[in-house]
Amino acid sequence: MITRKGRYTVVFSDGPKILSFASVAGPKEAQGPLSKKFDKIIYDPKAGKATWEQAESQLQKESLGLAISKAALHAEDIDFIFSGDLLNQCISSSYGLKDFSIPYLGQYGACSTMAQTLIMGAITLESGAARLCACVTSSHFCSAERQYRFPLEYGGQRPPSAQWTVTGSGCCILGTGKGANPVICGATVGRITDLGVTDANNMGAAMAPAAAQTIVDFFSDTGKSPSDFDRIYTGDLGQVGSKLLYSLTEDAGLNIRDKHLDCGLLIFNRDLQDVHAGGSGCGCAASVLCSHILPQIKEEKLKDVLFIATGALMSPTSCQQGQSIPCVAHLVHISAGT
Amino acid sequence: MITRKGRYTVVFSDGPKILSFASVAGPKEAQGPLSKKFDKIIYDPKAGKATWEQAESQLQKESLGLAISKAALHAEDIDFIFSGDLLNQCISSSYGLKDFSIPYLGQYGACSTMAQTLIMGAITLESGAARLCACVTSSHFCSAERQYRFPLEYGGQRPPSAQWTVTGSGCCILGTGKGANPVICGATVGRITDLGVTDANNMGAAMAPAAAQTIVDFFSDTGKSPSDFDRIYTGDLGQVGSKLLYSLTEDAGLNIRDKHLDCGLLIFNRDLQDVHAGGSGCGCAASVLCSHILPQIKEEKLKDVLFIATGALMSPTSCQQGQSIPCVAHLVHISAGT
Repeated sequence: MITRKGRYTVVFSDGPKILSFASVAGPKEAQGPLSKKFDKIIYDPKAGKATWEQAESQLQKESLGLAISKAALHAEDIDFIFSGDLLNQCISSSYGLKDFSIPYLGQYGACSTMAQTLIMGAITLESGAARLCACVTSSHFCSAERQYRFPLEYGGQRPPSAQWTVTGSGCCILGTGKGANPVICGATVGRITDLGVTDANNMGAAMAPAAAQTIVDFFSDTGKSPSDFDRIYTGDLGQVGSKLLYSLTEDAGLNIRDKHLDCGLLIFNRDLQDVHAGGSGCGCAASVLCSHILPQIKEEKLKDVLFIATGALMSPTSCQQGQSIPCVAHLVHISAGT
Repeated sequence: MITRKGRYTVVFSDGPKILSFASVAGPKEAQGPLSKKFDKIIYDPKAGKATWEQAESQLQKESLGLAISKAALHAEDIDFIFSGDLLNQCISSSYGLKDFSIPYLGQYGACSTMAQTLIMGAITLESGAARLCACVTSSHFCSAERQYRFPLEYGGQRPPSAQWTVTGSGCCILGTGKGANPVICGATVGRITDLGVTDANNMGAAMAPAAAQTIVDFFSDTGKSPSDFDRIYTGDLGQVGSKLLYSLTEDAGLNIRDKHLDCGLLIFNRDLQDVHAGGSGCGCAASVLCSHILPQIKEEKLKDVLFIATGALMSPTSCQQGQSIPCVAHLVHISAGT
């Protein structure tokens, strides 16, 4: 059953279970701290395909296929798939997933998409409309870089605030059933926030206010405090955005420093890997969730976690037209269910 | 309550109500057969803004604002907004809706988005996660044309199979409550279909197989027949796609000719308006639904209607890379509730 709590938060009293999860990552991610945790590493940036876009589709295909297998299911068991990505018209998802022939509901939340798909999947399961849902997203450094910034061959200089788009994908299969874990306990859906940042090379600064707003909404709606949680993970604020998040949440009377980690800072070693302010992209939060966070919840090393994926909702066109960057952050409360 | 019916269909037994709806259209649409039915016509293609993209955002802002007013609500009453559009990164939605400060869940189904937002809204209401949802989408001829095809100034020739992207927006406010109508009674979520069409100037042909598949799925799942419905509306198959739809559904033993109308053929006068195969775009199905279809249901002139919006999930990049066009169609069963 779902009950509303405050203005922005929903609570799943017998929450949907994450029956299985899988992560796929690229070669640079394989050199990072989470290397051994990914289910599969694809070392060829083109994944044996003709283009980077097709390679990104392949990442989604692999992570969905793996997650379905790990749950001992078949594609025809899945009632709905919620998926999205960063590419124009979400082509990584549509081309990557078409062969599964699963009813498809495309989601767009930029880098917040992993949290959004989990929320949509959880609501759909609780409503009775589905028995099993798949939630998947991806990003790819090469396809994102040429779409959002410059041709790779140009070798453009990147400012220190820039982040490195993760080549990776993560997929969760949601279902019901007693005893299973991790459990989705609640969610706060974000509002679009725009504090006027116009620098597309400083996504962390643009997204931090959205993350802060959603986090403040959640604690205000539920009456809980950061001490009630083992960890508070953000998606891809990176170094610049994380600092700003502390400042913004402290202005609202919340201290999350001791609990907070950012997926964009976990996936790469910033000292060794030349990623500037950290990792980013839909695939960043998704692959860290499915390789690093969910296993710890499943093993009950972490019992209560907040997962807040953040997305910047601009496009190259809106940036070229001088518009500021509207952002959104969606929060999912995941527990070990014990 | 939601029950599953067959493999692909869900039935809402005490279905969510469409409490209000609003449509906004551009100058060319104002010269068409539905001219007097739109709630608002914006005659300036730039809607007083600096760019066509900002004008498209304005269409969504206006249709959402009108629909909220017509339901005698305020923005803060709406729990979630489901929205999407055709522009890269769905910027019409994110920039158009940010000022409302409503929790935002971006959807991407290309021209199927209006049906998708209704399905997501209906499921979310039935789950108890929301009491009121807004469902909105838009398209704009000028922003779509330059993104998908050529700069307008180039004056490119259009083949007879091409369609004319509608400048328009439609919005529905969904809620619960006894007695109100129209009612959302059920839905069939589409699977991605790709029969290998690669011609981006023939969207009708690309999308017809997706529409046929979803329609066949619905009738197969429910055991109903076309004679159980007053009308079967497709979103934007146009002249070419509609003919193909008849052929494909007849191959499956269904005759829908007597019941079928296409929003893309209703919104323009093809003899007078030089739109080739008809209208298209997210705003086509949305503005026809909210100006022409829903009023007839509300007045009980139509009692049971199927609304099937179709979307082509390719991008200019995937077309340039020689990929075929994957499509999807989502079906919503709407009734007068009597």
